Amino acid sequence: MTTFKITLAYDGAGFVGWQRQASGMSIQKLIEDALADLDGRDVAVAGAGRTDAGVHALGQVAGFSLERAIAPDTLARALNARLPETVRVVAAEEVPPRFHARFDARWKTYRYRLWHGHTSNPFERQYAWHVSGALDVAAMAAAAPLVEGRHDFAGFQGAGSDPNTTEREVFSSRIVRSRKLSTTEGTEVILCGGELIQYEIAGDGFLRHMVRNIVGTLVEIGRGRRSVESIGEVLASRDRARAGPTAPAEGLFLVHVAYDEHPRAPATSS
Amino acid sequence: MTTFKITLAYDGAGFVGWQRQASGMSIQKLIEDALADLDGRDVAVAGAGRTDAGVHALGQVAGFSLERAIAPDTLARALNARLPETVRVVAAEEVPPRFHARFDARWKTYRYRLWHGHTSNPFERQYAWHVSGALDVAAMAAAAPLVEGRHDFAGFQGAGSDPNTTEREVFSSRIVRSRKLSTTEGTEVILCGGELIQYEIAGDGFLRHMVRNIVGTLVEIGRGRRSVESIGEVLASRDRARAGPTAPAEGLFLVHVAYDEHPRAPATSS
Repeated sequence: MTTFKITLAYDGAGFVGWQRQASGMSIQKLIEDALADLDGRDVAVAGAGRTDAGVHALGQVAGFSLERAIAPDTLARALNARLPETVRVVAAEEVPPRFHARFDARWKTYRYRLWHGHTSNPFERQYAWHVSGALDVAAMAAAAPLVEGRHDFAGFQGAGSDPNTTEREVFSSRIVRSRKLSTTEGTEVILCGGELIQYEIAGDGFLRHMVRNIVGTLVEIGRGRRSVESIGEVLASRDRARAGPTAPAEGLFLVHVAYDEHPRAPATSS
Repeated sequence: MTTFKITLAYDGAGFVGWQRQASGMSIQKLIEDALADLDGRDVAVAGAGRTDAGVHALGQVAGFSLERAIAPDTLARALNARLPETVRVVAAEEVPPRFHARFDARWKTYRYRLWHGHTSNPFERQYAWHVSGALDVAAMAAAAPLVEGRHDFAGFQGAGSDPNTTEREVFSSRIVRSRKLSTTEGTEVILCGGELIQYEIAGDGFLRHMVRNIVGTLVEIGRGRRSVESIGEVLASRDRARAGPTAPAEGLFLVHVAYDEHPRAPATSS
């Protein structure tokens, strides 16, 4: 048996999310089906974390073991040949058998994209939350770092999950870019009048809907409906009702999952 | 009658192009249908230029006259309410009755996006040409400006059109951005390993498939299949067979159409 770690990018639109569901197409099912085809047997795939329906990934990580000996590059190509174009294996490597994509993950980075414009942007309709009207981005930028540190994030936790603890450590929480963009500027993003606002958060773990609830709260701050300081009040209250609404799934990207460096597994004997 | 100039952004995927066709959905038909609904009569819409099937626009311009008196902002909102989310009116203004979107256009800017990566990018599959393998971007950047100036572009003209003259002036032809990008970088573009290469060209007019044929030729230069100097040979030969293949439609964006400043039309009497 050889154990592999793969890094995946996917466009979450049209999927029920990472995790296999009773009905609907999930990324996990697609990968497991492709691996079953490759290995001639059922293969269980563990993801670094769930992504909800409509949420995207630039660097989701998954791990699994195969009976068949295969070079990582060949594995990536073989998987990509069996996957739809909306899901791509962007890296593959052999790892020690004890590797587990979820339990070994040390921290994750998520990005949330907001399209702030008078009109919606045809190119961002599935990749950003369209927010119109006045937005105090400086207030949002001031509020974002207030969730940094070790906190009880129960106030930002969505319903329907019951983890052992709601304490998490956020290493970084920032509005990473706020720039006025015009259609004639030579930037690499596809624009059509308006402003792209990005929020990036890195931490050792995330509760259900935590990023989207933080973003929903930041947008309320930007709209002047609540104060910058209200972030601290939500944390202290541990009360979900004190936070803003859940930002829509389409703006959210799982950007990166970090692991400790693991020694390269010895070459597989075929 | 009041004459309006509107600026449009659209995702060209799934459309037969700007121009009304016997079958299939065109942007022109969508706008004309929305205007007929608004004005209670057939309204002819002139576009600044045709975009082919699959080609996108950030700043297409269209002009038309309405019997109904309507404020430009209201017109934009009324049109957007009647258009699919893939087509947006991003600006509207009243112009003198003699305004013509095509004849009055002074210059246009197009952008072409190339996704250069080992694997394709799920987020660029309809917005960039995926090019894999080694690419000498410096050679492409050196070749691009060789089409600047007034030239006979017959060698870069696609079949199926017969303009009065194949002479055009290109003001600027540049690889505008070439940057190694990684998934963890805090950039505003959606990435997943690889490199986004953008080409931008501005000129007083463009022949059919001219931009895409130039891009196809630049990519052959990047791949080392032809020399930087071959650009000049294609121009001198006026022979389409000497140029590279036509780059696919999905990477092309009509970015901007420039007009002389026109005096604001007097307020309409309703």
